[in-house]
Amino acid sequence: MNVSGDEPHRVLVDGRAAEAVGVFDRGLHYGDGLFETIAIRDGAAPLWDRHWQRLCNGCTRLGIAPPHGEVLRDELAQVAGGAPRAVVKIIVTRGAGGRGYAPPGDVRPTRILLRYGWPEYPAAHWTNGVQVRFCRASLGRNAQLAGLKHLNRIEQVLARSEWQDPAIAEGLMCDEQGKVIEATACNVFAFAGGMLRTPDLSACGVAGVMRELIIELAAGAGLETRVEPLSREKLLAADSVFLTNSLIGVWPVRKIEEHQFGIDGTIRELAAKANCVLRGE
Amino acid sequence: MNVSGDEPHRVLVDGRAAEAVGVFDRGLHYGDGLFETIAIRDGAAPLWDRHWQRLCNGCTRLGIAPPHGEVLRDELAQVAGGAPRAVVKIIVTRGAGGRGYAPPGDVRPTRILLRYGWPEYPAAHWTNGVQVRFCRASLGRNAQLAGLKHLNRIEQVLARSEWQDPAIAEGLMCDEQGKVIEATACNVFAFAGGMLRTPDLSACGVAGVMRELIIELAAGAGLETRVEPLSREKLLAADSVFLTNSLIGVWPVRKIEEHQFGIDGTIRELAAKANCVLRGE
Repeated sequence: MNVSGDEPHRVLVDGRAAEAVGVFDRGLHYGDGLFETIAIRDGAAPLWDRHWQRLCNGCTRLGIAPPHGEVLRDELAQVAGGAPRAVVKIIVTRGAGGRGYAPPGDVRPTRILLRYGWPEYPAAHWTNGVQVRFCRASLGRNAQLAGLKHLNRIEQVLARSEWQDPAIAEGLMCDEQGKVIEATACNVFAFAGGMLRTPDLSACGVAGVMRELIIELAAGAGLETRVEPLSREKLLAADSVFLTNSLIGVWPVRKIEEHQFGIDGTIRELAAKANCVLRGE
Repeated sequence: MNVSGDEPHRVLVDGRAAEAVGVFDRGLHYGDGLFETIAIRDGAAPLWDRHWQRLCNGCTRLGIAPPHGEVLRDELAQVAGGAPRAVVKIIVTRGAGGRGYAPPGDVRPTRILLRYGWPEYPAAHWTNGVQVRFCRASLGRNAQLAGLKHLNRIEQVLARSEWQDPAIAEGLMCDEQGKVIEATACNVFAFAGGMLRTPDLSACGVAGVMRELIIELAAGAGLETRVEPLSREKLLAADSVFLTNSLIGVWPVRKIEEHQFGIDGTIRELAAKANCVLRGE
């Protein structure tokens, strides 16, 4: 039975209004699944194609049957319910299973859609930039999982638990080798010498849809992005640094611990273009 | 309301008979929690003290308030329901929370107990030993999470998905550096030169309660265990190899891919002692 009618439901589990998921779901037991966090504007999801592509790619890599695209899109519209601004999170797990890591032969994926209110960040985060820190929590390297937005996120939880100070907007995370990979919920870019750099994510990190969009927008503006390992030193030596994700678009960074950064006009232009896409323009 | 009466419930969530968990639980969203897999014999859990100690230690390391020991023990007895042989899995998550990695200030842990049937492995696994393989899936290194039985287990799921052949009982997993760490659901020991070796778990792997017991039993029998990095070559050059976990006790390994192993009498003696403890003797 699909939910229908005018009232938007906050949560759909396999197409039904729900407040719970089965206690044997492998998403709970093993974090065996993927998620997408999607910005809703006037009931629509301007970055939908990118989210859908990444979700399908993630399902393929984890050996999970991807949901039916039209069904998912229909459910997204139901949960979004025409909201002017909202966030919808989609979770796809491998499904319910018995004890043990081996997935049952007849396992059927679970899809969960949840609507959240739009996060109200200070406008200055976009105009003046944000202050960030380095986290002690690090990222384990595993090429098989790198780039995926999977449900194994204790590393990010521990990193985000390191500070309470609301003046700190984000925390940067490094891998075991000390290379900067990402922030807890954002990708990171450095601008120096007329060129963008963003960390190589072939061993860890989440390949954000906004990161991908920024690389494309930059290329369209004749600005090269080097995807390569990024040391702390190189990041701190940049002219400008910024964070990206599919909800915020672009936040310039004005301060990493005691290091101050300017906001180059190039970054402002890129951010404005990303914002247009986010607004569905 | 606690469940009471004579009928054992298969699942308790926060003390109530349940089939589902709240859809906002951070165990589902982030794998933000821990678990224990406990052998039940005649309604009792002979290794309870070790499981409880590890669970508390894991909660402390993840910043989750541990459950009340007596409450949990009472719930374990309810779920076990006097079963002659069963498995009870305990999951403790950080609890329900909003969107985002930062745990809400008022988050309250969720505790979930689930009873499963006893796994029926061939008797020959104990007497003749098992055949195992090396997995391609590797373990990311992260000292902050190492040793913990946390809910981020996609690495094990992918490793266990590599084979279907029922003749293969387990798969060995290595870290990014190629060092042998554990099997998907077991710890591993090598016996050579009158000494035990088991991988150092300071960067990854689960520190099993049976692993701990084996090290103690070995020490009690005057047998030294070196906890140190273990290369494939050193493992394959051992006289005997065995796997341990809290359900199986000890399985000798007779074959790792094309390499054959004997079962030293020392290992048989250790296995017998571990089995006595598992039987609650």
